[in-house]
Amino acid sequence: MGKRVSLAGWVHANRALGAVSFVVVRDRCGIAQVVLSESLALVPETVVEVEGDAIASAQAPGGVELHDPSFHVLAEPAEPPPIEMRRPVPKETLPTMLDLAPVALRHPQRRARFEIAAASLHGFRATLDELGFTEISTPKIVASATETGANLFSVDYFGRRAFLAQSPQLYKQMLVGVFERVYETGPVFRAEPHDTARHLAEYTSLDAELAFVRDHFDVMAIVREVIAGMVRAVRERAAPAVELLELELPEVPSEIPAVHFADTGVEDVDLAPADERRLCEERGALLFVTGYPMAKRPFYTHPEPDRPHYSNSFDLLFRGLEIATGGQRLHRYGDYVAALGDKTDPYDAYLQAFRYGMPPHGGFALGLERWVARLIGAHNVRETTLFPRDLNRLTP
Amino acid sequence: MGKRVSLAGWVHANRALGAVSFVVVRDRCGIAQVVLSESLALVPETVVEVEGDAIASAQAPGGVELHDPSFHVLAEPAEPPPIEMRRPVPKETLPTMLDLAPVALRHPQRRARFEIAAASLHGFRATLDELGFTEISTPKIVASATETGANLFSVDYFGRRAFLAQSPQLYKQMLVGVFERVYETGPVFRAEPHDTARHLAEYTSLDAELAFVRDHFDVMAIVREVIAGMVRAVRERAAPAVELLELELPEVPSEIPAVHFADTGVEDVDLAPADERRLCEERGALLFVTGYPMAKRPFYTHPEPDRPHYSNSFDLLFRGLEIATGGQRLHRYGDYVAALGDKTDPYDAYLQAFRYGMPPHGGFALGLERWVARLIGAHNVRETTLFPRDLNRLTP
Repeated sequence: MGKRVSLAGWVHANRALGAVSFVVVRDRCGIAQVVLSESLALVPETVVEVEGDAIASAQAPGGVELHDPSFHVLAEPAEPPPIEMRRPVPKETLPTMLDLAPVALRHPQRRARFEIAAASLHGFRATLDELGFTEISTPKIVASATETGANLFSVDYFGRRAFLAQSPQLYKQMLVGVFERVYETGPVFRAEPHDTARHLAEYTSLDAELAFVRDHFDVMAIVREVIAGMVRAVRERAAPAVELLELELPEVPSEIPAVHFADTGVEDVDLAPADERRLCEERGALLFVTGYPMAKRPFYTHPEPDRPHYSNSFDLLFRGLEIATGGQRLHRYGDYVAALGDKTDPYDAYLQAFRYGMPPHGGFALGLERWVARLIGAHNVRETTLFPRDLNRLTP
Repeated sequence: MGKRVSLAGWVHANRALGAVSFVVVRDRCGIAQVVLSESLALVPETVVEVEGDAIASAQAPGGVELHDPSFHVLAEPAEPPPIEMRRPVPKETLPTMLDLAPVALRHPQRRARFEIAAASLHGFRATLDELGFTEISTPKIVASATETGANLFSVDYFGRRAFLAQSPQLYKQMLVGVFERVYETGPVFRAEPHDTARHLAEYTSLDAELAFVRDHFDVMAIVREVIAGMVRAVRERAAPAVELLELELPEVPSEIPAVHFADTGVEDVDLAPADERRLCEERGALLFVTGYPMAKRPFYTHPEPDRPHYSNSFDLLFRGLEIATGGQRLHRYGDYVAALGDKTDPYDAYLQAFRYGMPPHGGFALGLERWVARLIGAHNVRETTLFPRDLNRLTP
């Protein structure tokens, strides 16, 4: 205060009020008001460096404003931006915001969502680092249809047909045989033919897998630690974004409540979106549903020992939406051979791991965009994806 | 010591020596010797839990061994493993090791390489977090040929033709307009038609980009911090791997030396691998080469103001190999329109960012597998990739 200071950023707003003008400058930390005795022809989004005297001002954002400024223009926009940055919330529709993403994301209310995402990623990794997990990088181009075999994108791989991995599932299991506890954060690809508010063709999957578990409850205990770590990281590392978006972060109980599928009142073999909403209303914002029928789970799922049409699997619901799925996996070679029947060929490498001794293990995958959507109360996962990909959208 | 303890892991070796037998059990932390008065029929790679008395023993690995054990078998291999884990260094050729990756990676000497990689990733992110960078997740499926346009994989995207991103370059630049300082760690894809020891079809790129730079030297200062942070993280977080592999970690000078391309004695417009080796021998294990001729750099490269056939770009050489490349980028809309000429169409979204005001900026990309290869002295980047992808290899 009282000193000559300099800052650099974008002209967020520029208005004349009688004898004085105000130029509001935005950078990644916030906005600052600059007061001038003359009006300057600075188009919004002009990139400037400004030097001025820092003067206390109760009305100014942040309680300080710059007087007696000198401006240096670093780059001039070719035209005024198509979005009014100074509105507290942009008035444009979601498709327009997505089309204009390179500039729309500059809006502080939009940028804040991705600061929440970055903090969440940090919390995920920090929690698992602390628990002795090793980070892995597995291939996204794969030779054959894995997991369910549905919704795969195909790639021309030097004249051969290959596919984009719909998850790191098979690789993280193989690597449990190497590191015991592994995680990966990265893109996964689903050629999702339906245009819904909860599906994307490409999203960020937070995957973990761990060995020497008794059953899926050991995995759920890790999920609880991860969720708590992500909330903590958001609170500590993205405090300005939490404040700007007026978020109410969830309290993570020391044990997240769990309900068995058989006790949900659902007659079908899977939950419908309405069931997920109802269960969270009835039982808590964070809720595990366990024991899904084997009929709806992939081939590597471990059955429930005493009721083998149910499984040692779970989904995590958060504020009415499934955000994570996981469970105990089969670990005996013979069980895989039996589960795959005459379809073992595409799984040759995967089966190698089991042929040479694999411990009981399990894991989970959490969708980053869904997690952030539930945190900020967005209905559509496109709201929390920088550059979403779907049936109709491949740009920007 | 003297207590009853339990551990779980894989049977690493099993041998009888007269009246006693030794079973060596391996887990992610190391190996432990179990002493028995009878020999047990445990095939290597059997997954066991073992309880025993911890007894000090100077000859045993780690100075302790387990006596009077009771074994519980968790999973039996279908057959003995094709690789002898108890050899200090596997004798198999690289192609065999890659074919057998799910089990070959369990060898402690192999596993250690990827502990170095995980620690390096941590160091990269931790350094940039500290410097105010925001982590981003950008799309890997893109609409059109970007950057150089060469070596792209094509994807069938709901019946349309799309491509796999060969780098996050254009997205990280757009997002510099949002967050000022960004980084991303993730897969990039190159349909590299040559089968060399330094190229992969898919690798992990560590990308960063920052705004408000004076020129490429500001970017190089960040690269120096990142390299120092990665070395520190490897030293602190992967100490057992460093010891096992007998690594000599580089000293990172407070300023990494730099030589201008014009002073390298190279007549061509780019360095050959032999030039890279020679320059490191002459000038240091870590060396920046700056000012590469514009002719060999992509369209977004900022020219050197006083000698515009040179560029404000750099490569970082480490022990004779280029491991990172970067530079200052163009930031004025008009400069991009001029650089792209009549080829602006595929860059519509990218140009939006510049149309609405972008600060002077620059950045770099560092190849994780090359970095680890140089750290451990491996000639081939396939040695430091969990499941490499190349012209001839798409599995495991």
